[in-house]
Amino acid sequence: MTFPEIVPGGSLPLAWQLKDKPVVLIGGGMVASGRLFNLLQADELVTLIAPSNQLHPEVKYRIHEDPIASSRITYLDKVYSGKQDLQGAEIVLTAIDDNEQSLRIWRDAKDLRIPINVADVPPNCDFYFGSLIRRGPLQILVSTNGKGPKLASLIRQRVEESLPENVEGAIKRVGILREKLRERAPEVGGKLGKERMKWMSGICESWNLEELAELDDQGIDKLLDEGWERRKVMGCEEFYGMRRRERRKGLKENVSPLHWFVSGLLLGGLGSWLLFRKRG
Amino acid sequence: MTFPEIVPGGSLPLAWQLKDKPVVLIGGGMVASGRLFNLLQADELVTLIAPSNQLHPEVKYRIHEDPIASSRITYLDKVYSGKQDLQGAEIVLTAIDDNEQSLRIWRDAKDLRIPINVADVPPNCDFYFGSLIRRGPLQILVSTNGKGPKLASLIRQRVEESLPENVEGAIKRVGILREKLRERAPEVGGKLGKERMKWMSGICESWNLEELAELDDQGIDKLLDEGWERRKVMGCEEFYGMRRRERRKGLKENVSPLHWFVSGLLLGGLGSWLLFRKRG
Repeated sequence: MTFPEIVPGGSLPLAWQLKDKPVVLIGGGMVASGRLFNLLQADELVTLIAPSNQLHPEVKYRIHEDPIASSRITYLDKVYSGKQDLQGAEIVLTAIDDNEQSLRIWRDAKDLRIPINVADVPPNCDFYFGSLIRRGPLQILVSTNGKGPKLASLIRQRVEESLPENVEGAIKRVGILREKLRERAPEVGGKLGKERMKWMSGICESWNLEELAELDDQGIDKLLDEGWERRKVMGCEEFYGMRRRERRKGLKENVSPLHWFVSGLLLGGLGSWLLFRKRG
Repeated sequence: MTFPEIVPGGSLPLAWQLKDKPVVLIGGGMVASGRLFNLLQADELVTLIAPSNQLHPEVKYRIHEDPIASSRITYLDKVYSGKQDLQGAEIVLTAIDDNEQSLRIWRDAKDLRIPINVADVPPNCDFYFGSLIRRGPLQILVSTNGKGPKLASLIRQRVEESLPENVEGAIKRVGILREKLRERAPEVGGKLGKERMKWMSGICESWNLEELAELDDQGIDKLLDEGWERRKVMGCEEFYGMRRRERRKGLKENVSPLHWFVSGLLLGGLGSWLLFRKRG
C-alpha cells in the first residue's frame, strides 16, 4: 500500500475559533486596522491598546462608529504597560513600530503561554496570516508561508475568480438540506446516522456547486422524498431529467470553433451555389 | 470615508508555525492518520499516543517506515494517562472514539492552557481544520466553519483547478528575484528599502502568475538591469516586447466563434464561386 508523501516545510493552516473570546491587539496604525478587521469577523472581544493620537482613521471608526465593532472593542488609550495587559487573552497580536517594546510583549506572552503574532517579525510569530477570502460561512486562507506575500494576494485573486458567484448559496442550500434530512433521520451515529452521512456525501459528490445553489425548497423536499427515502443518491441530471442540464450547458461552451467553421463553410457554399444557379 | 463592512460569524484563519515544536496527537485510527499527515507537513515533533493494536496501516507506516515521518514521531504504545502526557505541547489533537476520555483530555489541555482540537466535537475545539491544498510553499485552507465539510472539499477541488500548474514555479522565481534584488539593495527600511518594496510590489501586480513562472535566470538579471536600476516597473509586455505575449495568447482563446463562422462563410462562398466559374 502506498500513502501520500509528506512534503516538509509547511505550516498547519487552521481556522481559529474565537467567538466571544478575549484577544488583545496592541497598536492602532494601518497594519493594526487590517488585523482588527480580521479579528472582528471572527466575533472576538477585542481589547485594543494604543494611544489615541496614533489611531488610523479606520481604527477610530471601528472603536466609535461601526455598529458591529464598537460593541466588541474595549479600547484602552495608553501604551502597553506589562503582563497584566495580556492576562486572560486567547491570542495576542502586536502591530507597533517600537521593536524593543514588541520584543517585551512577545516575551510576556510566551511567559503566559499565550500564542502571539508580532507583525513583520516572523521569528516572533506563533502563526502567520495570509491573504483571505470571505464569502459568508466560507473562508479561504492563501499562505505562501512567508515566501511571497505579494504573490499570496495574486493567488487569492485567481482563487476568488474561480469561485462560483453563488458559492454562499450552495453552502446555504446544503445546510438546509442537511437540516431537513436530520428532521427525517435524527439518530446520532448508529445505522441510520451512517446511512444519512453516506447519502449526504453522495449528493455532495455528484452535484456541482452551481447545481446545489439552484436547489430550491421544493427541490429539497423532492430530493428527500425521491432520493433519501429510497436511500438513493440521485445525480442532478437524474433528478431534473436530462433536458434541463443539457439546456443549461448552453451553446457557447459545447460547440467548438470547428463546428462554427464548418457551418460557415456549408452555408457559404450553399449561398454561393444558389446565387450562381440563378445567374447560370 | 467608508471602510469594509464586518461580516460576523467567521473564524480567524491562520497558518500555525510549528517547525520543530512538540505537539501531541492522541489516537491512531483513520482520522488520526489524516491529522498526522497534516502535522508532519508542518515539520513538528509529534508525540503519538495510541495502543499498537489500534493503529491504522498509514499510521503504522508513518511510525516505522516513512523516511521523513519516522524520525519526527515519538510513539507511545499506550492509552492517554493524564496531564503529564500533554506537558510542553504546543497544541494537542485527539481523534479517539471514547467520548469520556476525550472530555478528560480537553479539560487537561484547558488547565494547561494548550490549544486543542477534539475530532468531531466542535464545541471542544479551539480551532477547526478544513480542506487543504499544498503546492510547495503554497498552502490554501478552505473552511466552511463547520457549515458543510463535504462542500469544503468540493470547493477545494474547484480552487485547485483554478491554480496555474506552475504556481510553485512562480513563487520560486519571485523568491529568486527578491533575493537578487536584495543583493543590489540590501538596506533594511530607509529610502532604498521602501523603493525596493514598491518596485517588487509593482512587478507582482503587473505580471501574472504564468508570466512570473516563465521568468528565467537571465530574464531576472535583465529585469533588474532594465527595470530596477531605472526604478521602472516594467510590465511583461514591455519587458519582452509585444510580440511574445500576443503569440503566447494563442489563436484559440482570442478568436471568437463568430470569426470562425465568417471565415467559413467566406471560404465556402469563394470555393463555390471558383467551382461554378469553371463550370460556367
